[in-house]
Amino acid sequence: MAVYTEVSDSALAAFLGRYDIGMLLSCKGIAEGVENTNYVVHTEGGRFILTLYEKRVAAADLPFFIGLMDHLAAHGLTCPKPVRNRDGSALGTLVGRPAAMVSFLDGVWIRDPGATHCEALGRALAELHLAGADFAMHRPNALSVESWPGLFAAAGPGADALSAGLSALVAAELAQLATAWPRGLPEGVIHADLFPDNVFFLGDRLSGLIDFYFACTDAFAYDLAICLNAWCFAPDGRFDLARSTALFEGYGAVRRLTPQEVAALPILARGSALRFLLTRLVDWLNVPSGALVRPKDPLEYLRKLRFHQAVGSADTYGYR
Amino acid sequence: MAVYTEVSDSALAAFLGRYDIGMLLSCKGIAEGVENTNYVVHTEGGRFILTLYEKRVAAADLPFFIGLMDHLAAHGLTCPKPVRNRDGSALGTLVGRPAAMVSFLDGVWIRDPGATHCEALGRALAELHLAGADFAMHRPNALSVESWPGLFAAAGPGADALSAGLSALVAAELAQLATAWPRGLPEGVIHADLFPDNVFFLGDRLSGLIDFYFACTDAFAYDLAICLNAWCFAPDGRFDLARSTALFEGYGAVRRLTPQEVAALPILARGSALRFLLTRLVDWLNVPSGALVRPKDPLEYLRKLRFHQAVGSADTYGYR
Repeated sequence: MAVYTEVSDSALAAFLGRYDIGMLLSCKGIAEGVENTNYVVHTEGGRFILTLYEKRVAAADLPFFIGLMDHLAAHGLTCPKPVRNRDGSALGTLVGRPAAMVSFLDGVWIRDPGATHCEALGRALAELHLAGADFAMHRPNALSVESWPGLFAAAGPGADALSAGLSALVAAELAQLATAWPRGLPEGVIHADLFPDNVFFLGDRLSGLIDFYFACTDAFAYDLAICLNAWCFAPDGRFDLARSTALFEGYGAVRRLTPQEVAALPILARGSALRFLLTRLVDWLNVPSGALVRPKDPLEYLRKLRFHQAVGSADTYGYR
Repeated sequence: MAVYTEVSDSALAAFLGRYDIGMLLSCKGIAEGVENTNYVVHTEGGRFILTLYEKRVAAADLPFFIGLMDHLAAHGLTCPKPVRNRDGSALGTLVGRPAAMVSFLDGVWIRDPGATHCEALGRALAELHLAGADFAMHRPNALSVESWPGLFAAAGPGADALSAGLSALVAAELAQLATAWPRGLPEGVIHADLFPDNVFFLGDRLSGLIDFYFACTDAFAYDLAICLNAWCFAPDGRFDLARSTALFEGYGAVRRLTPQEVAALPILARGSALRFLLTRLVDWLNVPSGALVRPKDPLEYLRKLRFHQAVGSADTYGYR
């Protein structure tokens, strides 16, 4: 957690007292979730994740996130299910922050995913895209191509301080993506942050998806490009064709990509790499005092961006 | 946790594979425990705390801690119970660190304890002292009066940098305590770190004690003096007679203090305040890079030390 909010006994008791979940048995802050404060709450009624929404999550977006989890769970996707209090509300306030309780999902996230995991990920991603089709709410992607110049400006001279020449490279990439960014691709609800720590497995079986707090309405293929970056590079930085091939196979078994989506993958992968490069750069340069998290390395995404810049077509990713 | 050790999938699977606890269902790093890395592990066999012992816990001391938890649990105290693997061992190695699994205790720690909690604490502390009576192992208190000059030296000029005049105050206190420190008091196993975050409650009922990694053989009354410091000051810094009176009543209902112990309380409370002042000072001046914990304020214990310096007898603490 980037900021870790302590909850007093009385505040927690008052908050939980509005739910029909029995007596509190344990409550432990967990070292997961970069954006929010998360507690595992165990009561007589079951196990839950209690989230206090910090900095980057806008309160106005919470009904979208809560509604989406409800919708996806109702459509058979295994994801956290918001718990409603006696007033029927899934959103409350705790320590001055918006707060919600969701069901606890069993499973562990995979630190070193292999092709089997990527195949399961692909299926789950496509199922998410299909399940979101009749979700009525919309939320523009606040971290898509239009936002990147502003993020770059926020990083300022820090980019070159981190890596000589980084500013020029990003400026050139921003200019290219602004004109080359694909439009009109099939779109709908995307997760937009489906990194390994947001995908749970029980053994080799995918058991659920979590953390829908970047979910938005955008191109499905962009979500796939995010997974390509987040899942298909080995720890030594090399692109792993076995994983990407499995990812495409899993996805394709549930939802077939259009030729336009396939053609757009290299540009979408560049954009996705740039998006995480920029947000990590801003985080790197703005570690809040008292932060309880190590900022993630922006340069990992510089290396991924450079890889995609040399990719001419999805064949290079092993797409058949 | 001061240092937070990530565990790979394969290392965790290999470690858990040595236990008869069924399939892994979830594993989450928790933001509790300053000294060690702690995970809540949920398997088909139940819930456990997996601890990786970091820096300050000496591997040679682990058999004492594990043996003590076994002993206390066998004597009816509610504390974590070490889990043995198929080889009969409760101690293993994970990511190059000594590691152990103990049973998960339900309960929450009280951020703002009142007299009711202190009364329950006093009883539990005395029960711990009695239950430890026939524990065969011994461990000298490595953080008692003999160690304090060395801790002070480790802090060096940092003391005055934190608070002008602190060095002179500590030097004078060290000299006084070296001669005034009581000897020959009733002793046995003490917890030595029974702060509120190590005492769990379910409602107002004390449900268990955790974190025995400072436990040692020392004067029982010193343990009580530690609790006096850790539990009986209000958030505004004032000593709360209602809490201390309740603490003594709870303790006395289970084990009667000797007149020598009562007379020694003010000096023991000064020593205990100095011990936490010094260790916090050293931690404050040596926050490791990448630390995921905010160091605790040493000056809180300077204020407590000053309070005890003005105390002439245990009457001031409300002892009857």
